[in-house]
Amino acid sequence: MAKPVLTILTGNREVTGLENLRALADVRLAADDAELADALPGTEIVYLWNYFADGLRSGWDRADALKWVHLPAAGVDRLIFPELAASDVTVTNARGIFDTAMAEYALAGILYFAKNLPQARMNQAERRWQHFGTSNLAGTRALVAGTGSIGRTTARLLRAVGIPADGLGRTARDGDADFGAVFASADFASVAGNYDWVVLVAPLTADTRGMLDAEVLGAMRSSAVLVNMGRGDLVVQAALERALRAGEIRGAVLDVTSPEPLPKPSPLWGLENVLITPHLSGDSRSHLPAMAAQFEANLRAYLAGRPLENVVDKQLGFVASPTGG
Amino acid sequence: MAKPVLTILTGNREVTGLENLRALADVRLAADDAELADALPGTEIVYLWNYFADGLRSGWDRADALKWVHLPAAGVDRLIFPELAASDVTVTNARGIFDTAMAEYALAGILYFAKNLPQARMNQAERRWQHFGTSNLAGTRALVAGTGSIGRTTARLLRAVGIPADGLGRTARDGDADFGAVFASADFASVAGNYDWVVLVAPLTADTRGMLDAEVLGAMRSSAVLVNMGRGDLVVQAALERALRAGEIRGAVLDVTSPEPLPKPSPLWGLENVLITPHLSGDSRSHLPAMAAQFEANLRAYLAGRPLENVVDKQLGFVASPTGG
Repeated sequence: MAKPVLTILTGNREVTGLENLRALADVRLAADDAELADALPGTEIVYLWNYFADGLRSGWDRADALKWVHLPAAGVDRLIFPELAASDVTVTNARGIFDTAMAEYALAGILYFAKNLPQARMNQAERRWQHFGTSNLAGTRALVAGTGSIGRTTARLLRAVGIPADGLGRTARDGDADFGAVFASADFASVAGNYDWVVLVAPLTADTRGMLDAEVLGAMRSSAVLVNMGRGDLVVQAALERALRAGEIRGAVLDVTSPEPLPKPSPLWGLENVLITPHLSGDSRSHLPAMAAQFEANLRAYLAGRPLENVVDKQLGFVASPTGG
Repeated sequence: MAKPVLTILTGNREVTGLENLRALADVRLAADDAELADALPGTEIVYLWNYFADGLRSGWDRADALKWVHLPAAGVDRLIFPELAASDVTVTNARGIFDTAMAEYALAGILYFAKNLPQARMNQAERRWQHFGTSNLAGTRALVAGTGSIGRTTARLLRAVGIPADGLGRTARDGDADFGAVFASADFASVAGNYDWVVLVAPLTADTRGMLDAEVLGAMRSSAVLVNMGRGDLVVQAALERALRAGEIRGAVLDVTSPEPLPKPSPLWGLENVLITPHLSGDSRSHLPAMAAQFEANLRAYLAGRPLENVVDKQLGFVASPTGG
């Protein structure tokens, strides 16, 4: 049987596990979106090792043999466009790869504020040995918006350190294995005031865009901290800036912003109660090999005619699963 | 029966639970060391709510009725002096009160470096959205020097987030409930290279003073981070400064220094790979009420002729227990 044509968007970065893929498929390498579009005729599988904005979309007319697109990321919101959604092309993602790193990132952000490390840094810059208040995790509560694999891993880690976590998902439900209770996203504002930590890991969809708005911010405790590891557009960023400046909430840990990179003039950069990282919460020493192994395993399944893992529901915008969000 | 005379060193700070104590004892309040020394004649119990250096020592000749001294702290190294050690006076401490807060502080310090928040802060100050490396806790290992209640609570919390922790205590032993293995402090240098995180919570004694010296620092991984929540003098601070400056270890989280307050000219203040806090790792919203309740319970035991809790072995310098260090 002839090997399928696999086009990899590399972004001129080394593709982990490339030799293994060459043994399984007829590999074409595309450095950027333009090369990807040119390589689409005859391509059966696209592997977006390095993801840009719209190579697939701009070359869609030339995708005459495309069956499967793999995006080694958790969120597929920037990938999906109407023609792709309406097509029979399968989309898979890297569900599961980033769970542990992101859960740990959330805990790092929570402890950063619980132990008042922003104050520690300010005092240290002035060589000032002066007592300041700190608080314990024990007795606090978290709300995790997004009940997929990242949200679940986060909830389990938080519970392990003494923070019970409730969830916010598409539909309310009881008896969840990882969350104390799951509330419907529509009720965000009515429950937000019960938590010390609000963690966003929901996929960006029409339903979740702007879910953290002025109303929710107004309902949050003034001592509450937001951790956003999902997408910047889950938040009405202007409302968040106002709330942070006014002290309506204690602080924010932002691994994602709108847009990215966050422009230099953004007032968020200068706020002492904000910690910004450049969309790296899912990183770890092992995430590249894990991403490569996950795609290779799926490619072997594809070649053997077995079902693929982590197939994205292109209407929902994420991998739907019995425990999904 | 006449109430015993209880002298409280207040430091002019409000004494939590004072009214309860007045019901149980004939309370004298001493604002400072001089007033404490003056109040000693006839005093049966001294409660060092606010601890200074040497009121008890300087007034020792006048301590004609003293039976019991309570220090609501974990470390008693600054309290004990030869005459007190040689006397029949019982010394108790606040064992257990600080465990959770200190374990959480250690985890905060570990995550601060694992997720490279020092780099995040530097980039943020320059409004720079630039990727940097982070690492996962999963797969790392910790060594906790000090196997008393604080060390055990720390080990349990670290294990809960995926970091197996070994211990360093007076004597090596296997089969510990909280530690994977416990090594003898004398072997610190030979085992230090096996860990990503080295946490110091040992009591300061003749045996532990300067336990983290140039030899141990040289044996530690260049990627390792030190968290010192014990006493500044557990560390040969000049050697630590050299190691931090030379990049021999990754960083240090110092809640204790030598001396305290850390003098403004200390180079430690200015090192980007050092996080300094002013001896607050044991603090929490609940620690004052918990300290007050612990002393009151012990006072009731004393009045009833029952054995006191948390009696310090004045020769060892800490509360000896079946699971102690």
